[in-house]
Amino acid sequence: MSKGITSRAEDYSQWYNELVAKADLAEHSAVRGCMVIKPYGYSIWEKMQAALDKMFKDTGHTNAYFPLFIPKSFFTKEASHVEGFATECAVVTHYRLKNDGNGNIIVDEDAKLEEELIVRPTSETIIWNTYRGWVQSYRDLPILVNQWANVVRWEMRTRLFLRTAEFLWQEGHTAHATSGEAIEEAERMLEVYADFAENWLAVPVIRGIKTPNERFAGAVETYCIEALMQDGKALQAGTSHFLGQNFAKAFDVKFTSKEGKLEHVWATSWGVSTRLVGALIMSHSDDQGLVLPPKLAPIQVVIVPIHKTDDDLARIGQFADGLIAKLKSKNISVKYDDRDTQRPGFKFAEYEMKGVPVRIALGARDLENNTVEIARRDTREKQTISQEGLDLYIENLLTEIQQNIYNKALEFRTQNTREANSYEEFKKALDETPGFISAHWDGTPETEQKIKEETKATIRCIPLNNKKEEGVCIYSGKPSSQRVLFARAY
Amino acid sequence: MSKGITSRAEDYSQWYNELVAKADLAEHSAVRGCMVIKPYGYSIWEKMQAALDKMFKDTGHTNAYFPLFIPKSFFTKEASHVEGFATECAVVTHYRLKNDGNGNIIVDEDAKLEEELIVRPTSETIIWNTYRGWVQSYRDLPILVNQWANVVRWEMRTRLFLRTAEFLWQEGHTAHATSGEAIEEAERMLEVYADFAENWLAVPVIRGIKTPNERFAGAVETYCIEALMQDGKALQAGTSHFLGQNFAKAFDVKFTSKEGKLEHVWATSWGVSTRLVGALIMSHSDDQGLVLPPKLAPIQVVIVPIHKTDDDLARIGQFADGLIAKLKSKNISVKYDDRDTQRPGFKFAEYEMKGVPVRIALGARDLENNTVEIARRDTREKQTISQEGLDLYIENLLTEIQQNIYNKALEFRTQNTREANSYEEFKKALDETPGFISAHWDGTPETEQKIKEETKATIRCIPLNNKKEEGVCIYSGKPSSQRVLFARAY
Repeated sequence: MSKGITSRAEDYSQWYNELVAKADLAEHSAVRGCMVIKPYGYSIWEKMQAALDKMFKDTGHTNAYFPLFIPKSFFTKEASHVEGFATECAVVTHYRLKNDGNGNIIVDEDAKLEEELIVRPTSETIIWNTYRGWVQSYRDLPILVNQWANVVRWEMRTRLFLRTAEFLWQEGHTAHATSGEAIEEAERMLEVYADFAENWLAVPVIRGIKTPNERFAGAVETYCIEALMQDGKALQAGTSHFLGQNFAKAFDVKFTSKEGKLEHVWATSWGVSTRLVGALIMSHSDDQGLVLPPKLAPIQVVIVPIHKTDDDLARIGQFADGLIAKLKSKNISVKYDDRDTQRPGFKFAEYEMKGVPVRIALGARDLENNTVEIARRDTREKQTISQEGLDLYIENLLTEIQQNIYNKALEFRTQNTREANSYEEFKKALDETPGFISAHWDGTPETEQKIKEETKATIRCIPLNNKKEEGVCIYSGKPSSQRVLFARAY
Repeated sequence: MSKGITSRAEDYSQWYNELVAKADLAEHSAVRGCMVIKPYGYSIWEKMQAALDKMFKDTGHTNAYFPLFIPKSFFTKEASHVEGFATECAVVTHYRLKNDGNGNIIVDEDAKLEEELIVRPTSETIIWNTYRGWVQSYRDLPILVNQWANVVRWEMRTRLFLRTAEFLWQEGHTAHATSGEAIEEAERMLEVYADFAENWLAVPVIRGIKTPNERFAGAVETYCIEALMQDGKALQAGTSHFLGQNFAKAFDVKFTSKEGKLEHVWATSWGVSTRLVGALIMSHSDDQGLVLPPKLAPIQVVIVPIHKTDDDLARIGQFADGLIAKLKSKNISVKYDDRDTQRPGFKFAEYEMKGVPVRIALGARDLENNTVEIARRDTREKQTISQEGLDLYIENLLTEIQQNIYNKALEFRTQNTREANSYEEFKKALDETPGFISAHWDGTPETEQKIKEETKATIRCIPLNNKKEEGVCIYSGKPSSQRVLFARAY
């Protein structure tokens, strides 16, 4: 922690990159576009996984696992699906290396696969091919399955967590007897994601549906949650798709209904990924480093002893032991850092960089006065308080920090969401004060595309429960019945 | 559950395949050698993961994530490593598909990778290439990292869980300043595996080291745990490798020691996989289906109502609610199966097939008599007992079942471990009463290889803390100082 990082104002993108490195979250690997998620970064992802997994199970889902590879022929069965993914997929063509006789290890051309395998970019095709064997009757439905897995999309421009060739995610794939039930499921899971984003990540999100242009390849309707980052760019934080009968038809998955009729099954899929770690970083962190919501912080409280003598250290350690026991019994994760290789100031900067929500410093004078110095990461405020009831104080403080971080992000979003009533206003807003822009749109893909080309802003979503309002499209001047949400996006 | 499965005596291999299918554990996928782990099978794996993950963390390890792909050049840097894995690896050569103009989706030859990527069969190479950037000084050591991941080995003959082209596993990769510390780590993790096998899977294991022939490709020493299946074949249930400085040298990972000297880092790696699900199945199950140790059973207790009237069902349901609440407070997972689409007999057979440790049947007469009928899966004994203190009874019963399953497996192993003092005896034992055979061996790879070719038996391990005993090799007649453990193996 010898030096700080570039400030957000100076260079937001550079700030992000340096923060990810200095906070020990992730790094680029030797494999193009693939990242190494370092232990500290991975422990945040693990906390996300645990919370989400519980939410999925509480809504009736179970986990399963499907193959990493998808035969090329499956991949191409759903027309818009392959169109969406074909240009960025890793292809396995051989299954063996050999020594060429000169000591070089080369690909063995005798071990060429009859049919190429695609490393899954998403698993609808292999899963629906499997579901064909699982469904005969309405009694076999619904299937409510989730998978935690790695997927690969050969992105040309990558950024740690936000866009990488390989990433970790979960993908839910459900099968239903009716269209209505599938839509209900897609909407339920969107609400789970929104709940998770707001109550765990402390990131307020707009729930909405995507325009046809921005829909998942193969979906009838794509629901999404959209968050606003501190640089005013939007980030899609999760999607839930109503797939209609598209994949059931492509893979011939039928069931006999209660009425004895043979029908195609209805589908949903929904996913969030390690991208959420990127969203988390960019939503809350500051020029001193990471700011983590307590619910996802691997270490919630750190205790740093400030001592001159070994005797001081022993007494501080004794006090710390007692506090740690009390905090652990409240399920608060706490670290006591008595490393003698680093000074307190170094440790303070390190835990600030790593976003530990609460820091306690404790010296010999504190022991005499029955006090501790407590610093919260979110506001960077320090306070000297009594040791009396400290565990309860910390428990409440963590709750308060979680709420405060959310409120701050919500306030930022409110301040950076505005209406534009002309294309001039729209472009000015985008350039001067980026954020969400609520504007009328004529509903055509052509207009959407033009605006995107000219301004790099896309329609993030049509918010759910959108207010109907007569107006005219900012681009074409044609009539419009509602505003949609534009932004430049990650 | 309309019909049973082939008995073990009739055809053990067929019994296994049918059991895996009927108990809804896994199935073959459309991709050669890759399996679909179905929800019930996956939930057993999840329980294994949770227990192991806690054990890893309790011994100071953290999780991280490294790329799925390994550049071919990395893969070939450690000579014996590439030799061990090159003949069975999936190779990615392209990163795009395209439309050939005639409506066919083909591999885009313009998108050929400059360097082929290997889908990781194990991650030593990519991880040690990463560690080079993590280690400068002895202060950066040890690195105690684990990864939960999928890996691919292009096996030609596959069997669900036991041998599949893709499988799930964890791989620990640690880095140390001294040889002694690394050996200690490798031995510590072997003990973690043995503890897990015995106390969770209820599978007794022999702890040992592999002969050079059977060592991991790139290891200096391979520690292993070996279990005995009901057909008398051995199964390697986990390995822990002391890698010496082999990978540090191949990837130039050095550190400055306390004494200021530049030295290569010492390494270990250790892993267990979804293979353990196969070991679990084959160790305990019977001709009626799966037998699960309570600690890994996704459902520990099932309650089946036996009723004639709706009124009966309502009263049984009320009783079940109370019992479920009590069991849940003891962290016992319980399912109440009041499906009206199936008869009790069908349900009994289903839960037997799925290995649910305790089944409670409850009818109107039981309510009158204040009793329940309780059946344990392991012994298939039924008993009518009082409802008084039922939760405590069940809690104790689950502990007893866990222990009983282990004892049974241990007794089986004891009965099926014998000494052979001549090659004739050895071959006879193998054919008539397969199991572990303890025999003298001259310590040469040649003899080991000959015995393998002639009998298909391999040296499973040289047991740790092996008794020294003068003798002569059963094959060569040369002197030997200890017995080693042979078996035919999965």
